[in-house]
Amino acid sequence: MSKPVAIEVYNPNGKYRVVSTKPMPGTRWINLLVDQGCRVEICHLKKTILSVEDIIDLIGNRCDGVIGQLTEDWGETLFSALSKAGGKAFSNMAVGYNNVDVEAANKYGIAVGNTPGVLTETTAELAASLSLAAARRIVEADGFMRAGLYEGWLPHLFVGNLLKGQTVGVIGAGRIGSAYARMMVEGFKMNLIYFDLYQSTRLEKFVTAYGQFLKANGEQPVTWKRASSMEEVLREADLISLHPVLDKTTYHLVNKERLAMMKKEAILVNCSRGPVIDEEALVNHLRENPMFRVGLDVFEEEPFMKPGLADMKNAIVVPHIASASKWTREGMATLAALNVVGRIKGYPIWSDPNRVDPFLNENASPPNASPSIVNSKALGLPVSKL
Amino acid sequence: MSKPVAIEVYNPNGKYRVVSTKPMPGTRWINLLVDQGCRVEICHLKKTILSVEDIIDLIGNRCDGVIGQLTEDWGETLFSALSKAGGKAFSNMAVGYNNVDVEAANKYGIAVGNTPGVLTETTAELAASLSLAAARRIVEADGFMRAGLYEGWLPHLFVGNLLKGQTVGVIGAGRIGSAYARMMVEGFKMNLIYFDLYQSTRLEKFVTAYGQFLKANGEQPVTWKRASSMEEVLREADLISLHPVLDKTTYHLVNKERLAMMKKEAILVNCSRGPVIDEEALVNHLRENPMFRVGLDVFEEEPFMKPGLADMKNAIVVPHIASASKWTREGMATLAALNVVGRIKGYPIWSDPNRVDPFLNENASPPNASPSIVNSKALGLPVSKL
Repeated sequence: MSKPVAIEVYNPNGKYRVVSTKPMPGTRWINLLVDQGCRVEICHLKKTILSVEDIIDLIGNRCDGVIGQLTEDWGETLFSALSKAGGKAFSNMAVGYNNVDVEAANKYGIAVGNTPGVLTETTAELAASLSLAAARRIVEADGFMRAGLYEGWLPHLFVGNLLKGQTVGVIGAGRIGSAYARMMVEGFKMNLIYFDLYQSTRLEKFVTAYGQFLKANGEQPVTWKRASSMEEVLREADLISLHPVLDKTTYHLVNKERLAMMKKEAILVNCSRGPVIDEEALVNHLRENPMFRVGLDVFEEEPFMKPGLADMKNAIVVPHIASASKWTREGMATLAALNVVGRIKGYPIWSDPNRVDPFLNENASPPNASPSIVNSKALGLPVSKL
Repeated sequence: MSKPVAIEVYNPNGKYRVVSTKPMPGTRWINLLVDQGCRVEICHLKKTILSVEDIIDLIGNRCDGVIGQLTEDWGETLFSALSKAGGKAFSNMAVGYNNVDVEAANKYGIAVGNTPGVLTETTAELAASLSLAAARRIVEADGFMRAGLYEGWLPHLFVGNLLKGQTVGVIGAGRIGSAYARMMVEGFKMNLIYFDLYQSTRLEKFVTAYGQFLKANGEQPVTWKRASSMEEVLREADLISLHPVLDKTTYHLVNKERLAMMKKEAILVNCSRGPVIDEEALVNHLRENPMFRVGLDVFEEEPFMKPGLADMKNAIVVPHIASASKWTREGMATLAALNVVGRIKGYPIWSDPNRVDPFLNENASPPNASPSIVNSKALGLPVSKL
């Protein structure tokens, strides 16, 4: 086992030792840790995914807390090692924590943090970005131009879709799905059809009010409809974005049969989880339907794509960058750092993990609380009164 | 001179001979010509830009009207040939007609048509599409994924901009600029700053009303400001889209000095005309500012790009596809065909070329009029009373 080669250290005389397994965007998170008396060590090992052994090395003999990533395996071994080193807290730089064995963390009394409340708009904007890029065949057209193939304007060159007046279908109208729906409805005057087990009253009310607003201003109102089945959305929509949670019921939600229900020239976008789509069936569908287009941020066997997908001109594929805006990533780093230092200092837990604005204001000190600890109940940690 | 090899003919016994120099999207335009008794000949010559000689061949000894393209040189020679062949009308499949010598057309009494009123939303949607693709580095990220370079989620991978709450700058707030402004304001809750010699009262009123609507629904309102100079827009906006007309005053409007005024991480979009930007200065600026990004649909020396542009990762370049939606391109073909057949049949000229909806309704016969003839006054053609 060789030691990670590059460690960046801030405030070497700090009282508490906090380790980040990766460099994270921005510097505010570092400053906040330093302000609270931490020595901050950042691992710069040139390796995309750190192994359990790498992280044990980083933890060493004494470590108060670790900020880690969704790509790491936080189970019995690491929590045991962190506990032995005197550690009290771990935070993922992510909302999800399927890489964490929370039971094991509970066993060692270690708080597990995550970073909710900052991803909604950035993720919805990526879905919108993929939707528009697919509608206008941007990636394909850019490749053509860059290859020097453009010889002059032609009536048939890269003809795509006008979104205005078409129907946007949203499957899963939670926070992100609703934000995306509004971007397409308000921005491009698309009519909405959505499917969700729960009625999205807030979204319905808003789109109704917006339609009335348009009408009052002399314009064509937009409409909305809650579909009684997912299939209804697939059949009727011109552009469909998937925003369900991934569980047994949504695994391969979009399969061969359901792809066949969609319009031949429809656009499908997925910024949720890879296994929601049967990727092999999708590759076949793309091959057989050259005007069917897809925008994918996630893949069934990430970081890999199913054979053939990389060759499809009617696909746009990006490497899981839904939360990759400066604002969101710096916010995630801040929340992860504050989760860890809050627990180290014995601060209470913030009462509403989705209302994290006070932690993100760069012009003020953050509240003395951990923004979001997922096992706070199991550990019996006190809730902030702020 | 060799004859074009491939001619597709519809309705061989038609009374009037109408030639299209290129295949155009959709079939409605063909059906409309056939319905009015035309023999339709479409040139399928595998050549991006037809020469004057090619078109003389197409016109032949007898031709009533021609539908042509912006890439063709319609001057004295062609109008003389068309006139000798008994022709009465030519229509560009384009709004612009800088390829047409209207004086020469007047001399031979030939009507010149164009296709306004169907490009606004499609062009504005392309500007929005380029804006979002640049903000989230879609083309670059797609190339990375397709090249198999993705090894797993990383905090710093393709971090881009969250548009919400940022400022969109619009230079030239005419029809397309205003439509684009609304897409970004309503869709992404961006604040607007615009520069135009004329006050865009309609846009200002709408954004004010929309801000009030948001506030009434418990949300942060958006704001707008009319800048007193273009420089003010360049300095303040995070995302800037150019929509001026091209003339002496707007040639190299965005030059080295003005690029230097923009934020280091700003996004610049151009779907207007290439020479509005000093493309060489832009290449240098992109090279020196890796987080400055640009989305270009037009180029200074189309179809070519200035040296270096094709290598810039922070540029998205597409081959003049602003009007390339199915709806718009089929609409353009319809309007061009109706311009020509209307003149052949002696119909009057439609009174408002920007209100062309009645010609585009696929479920009804179009009005008996030419939708838009640019030299109708010079030729003394009657205006429709419809």
